[in-house]
Amino acid sequence: MISVAEARARVLDQLPAAPREIVALAEAWGRVTAAPVLARLSQPPSDVSAMDGFAVRAADAGLGARLEVVGNAPAGHPWPGTVQAGQTVRLFTGSVLPQGADAVVIQEDTTADGNFITVTEAATPGRHIRRAGQDFAAGNPLIPAGRRLTARDIGLAAAGNHPWLAVHRRPRIAILATGDEIALPGEPIPPGGIVSSNAHALAAFVRALGGEPIVLPIALDDLEAIGAGADAARGADLLVTTGGASVGAHDLVQAGLAQRGMALDFWKIAMRPGKPLMHGRIGGLPVLGLPGNPVSALVCAVLFLLPALARLSGLPDTAPPEVTATLGAPLPANDHRADHLRATLHESADGTLVATAFQRQDSAMLRLMAQAGGLILRAPNAPAAQAGAPVQVIRLESLGL
Amino acid sequence: MISVAEARARVLDQLPAAPREIVALAEAWGRVTAAPVLARLSQPPSDVSAMDGFAVRAADAGLGARLEVVGNAPAGHPWPGTVQAGQTVRLFTGSVLPQGADAVVIQEDTTADGNFITVTEAATPGRHIRRAGQDFAAGNPLIPAGRRLTARDIGLAAAGNHPWLAVHRRPRIAILATGDEIALPGEPIPPGGIVSSNAHALAAFVRALGGEPIVLPIALDDLEAIGAGADAARGADLLVTTGGASVGAHDLVQAGLAQRGMALDFWKIAMRPGKPLMHGRIGGLPVLGLPGNPVSALVCAVLFLLPALARLSGLPDTAPPEVTATLGAPLPANDHRADHLRATLHESADGTLVATAFQRQDSAMLRLMAQAGGLILRAPNAPAAQAGAPVQVIRLESLGL
Repeated sequence: MISVAEARARVLDQLPAAPREIVALAEAWGRVTAAPVLARLSQPPSDVSAMDGFAVRAADAGLGARLEVVGNAPAGHPWPGTVQAGQTVRLFTGSVLPQGADAVVIQEDTTADGNFITVTEAATPGRHIRRAGQDFAAGNPLIPAGRRLTARDIGLAAAGNHPWLAVHRRPRIAILATGDEIALPGEPIPPGGIVSSNAHALAAFVRALGGEPIVLPIALDDLEAIGAGADAARGADLLVTTGGASVGAHDLVQAGLAQRGMALDFWKIAMRPGKPLMHGRIGGLPVLGLPGNPVSALVCAVLFLLPALARLSGLPDTAPPEVTATLGAPLPANDHRADHLRATLHESADGTLVATAFQRQDSAMLRLMAQAGGLILRAPNAPAAQAGAPVQVIRLESLGL
Repeated sequence: MISVAEARARVLDQLPAAPREIVALAEAWGRVTAAPVLARLSQPPSDVSAMDGFAVRAADAGLGARLEVVGNAPAGHPWPGTVQAGQTVRLFTGSVLPQGADAVVIQEDTTADGNFITVTEAATPGRHIRRAGQDFAAGNPLIPAGRRLTARDIGLAAAGNHPWLAVHRRPRIAILATGDEIALPGEPIPPGGIVSSNAHALAAFVRALGGEPIVLPIALDDLEAIGAGADAARGADLLVTTGGASVGAHDLVQAGLAQRGMALDFWKIAMRPGKPLMHGRIGGLPVLGLPGNPVSALVCAVLFLLPALARLSGLPDTAPPEVTATLGAPLPANDHRADHLRATLHESADGTLVATAFQRQDSAMLRLMAQAGGLILRAPNAPAAQAGAPVQVIRLESLGL
């Protein structure tokens, strides 16, 4: 048995980011940039007014100055002339500052009189002007490579004049559920059978993390059926299997994939739930074999599939995001396996995140797993911990997991 | 001017959840349930073995007992007979417990001898058995209405035998950017013009929160063009405009929409950035008028469009999710307008979330807005605050915003 950290490192070892593709800006939200996004123009493109007001020569617009309004320049309609002594041009927020002017007097600091204004608060050079390139100049980096694009980033890329963006292709994850006893939801259930939940949970998991799931037909407990599943994963970036990853008489996944040439890396981890996690490679196709138990499969997905998806997506950080919380109830000492306790999370009155492990940690309780706010991480041989003690937690709900 | 809280309440007033639709389980991740999801079967469906081992009659399987292996029952292949005294049946994890048996002896607690086993650790009634319905019984509620479905929920709905789920239709948000000065990214830019970023940022914002954006063509600063934009929003759940919401000479949105019968609710809020926020209704179509300034538009979207999307999506909580953080740098006293400071967020060594406002809070700095981890909320007339003081923060990055 190897540790969670070693297993994760081995899953990530030699796993490349998915290749680049070009997507329209309107489709780029949530995608991961494959190259830095540089500004293609300056913003603002020229000196512009920050307010509704009047373009003036400051030297000429002291308290009480009377200026002739010689032009009107709404945003998008620059005034083509040059402001001379004794003149002013009406501007609006975002209007280009006309030549000759070096300040803006806001509307509230003037009184109007036909085609003239009187200044009631002296102008200061540069006042109420946004300088060309104040937000960014052409060539400035706007968004680094390896960032999952937020709504704000999309706005920034638009402002930088990018109709297209280079991103990493969505990781394609083939998902192969195995077992004679499982049936698709709504289909006839064999005697003693259950409904397949892992493949659908994992497909949603892949979607939540920006990947593209390919759900393969269920493979019966038969070497050739499992081998055919691997064949169907051609073109995927990763094959994820569920069930049959240990070496019981009916755990045929290893043997079925070995028939297709899988080089086995490891298949046992010192963790709970989910000890029988398999990792290997069929030619260029990495294989992650998750346990058949739904809770174990999901916990292993958080610990190993999430990092693999992050790496394939082109993200720099691959570890599952941990936060510090305080325990809402004591925990006993842990044994030699890393544990991942399903827990409720709530914010206390002072803003502290409180994590309370469910009393029942039975790995067959999918309903409790679905109700958990997150997983409390317990290191191998961790000592008993009192309520109030700090613990590391992986939040699940906020990730859509 | 009205407060942020009053404005939000008025935006949400009479805003209904979007109607229901049916989606395939495989498409349901991230959607919001429109009805509780009840289990259609029990899980496990019968008493099953929790381990690889042997089904026994406990009274009959004391230390040293020798039992005849009369059957083999892999998961999905129940043994049809009844276990008699002196007999046992080979089971695997998930195998149905045969009739007559009341305990499981795990494989490690037996020695094999041809067709017989010897028990090396006495059986206990009920041991290593998962009872029928232990996870859930038919009819049990699995997922409440009004929940945004996680990957785990999808697995749970599958296990409960649901190939389809009733969810709220994605809120359809029509987005109308206005202004003579703006151009779509990559298209010719008019003299003194800039690239339109708001519509694209808001479309991504809508997607991030599970809605369906409809980006309308840019409306020039012309009453009829703006009215035509409102016409094009037919069938949307909400029309969002950007730009021209105040009452400057070139702020024509109110007038353009009034031509189509808009009943104006309010258009000024005591907040920064983003004072000119408009709300109204054209017949059955609610209208949210965001400022033209990109930073103001995004902050107003967090404060008002996010709650509207939550309500339209059928979620019970509509307030932007706040967390408590501590200030990384002091803040001066605030004036009479609620402020929303762009800030970096980081977790300190002890797990505390630390929020540090950018030195520059210029609402023209979209690049800084995109780099912010979140917004520090400053109440109207809040006193000066020292580093280390608690503040409420809206995290943006973790929401994909």
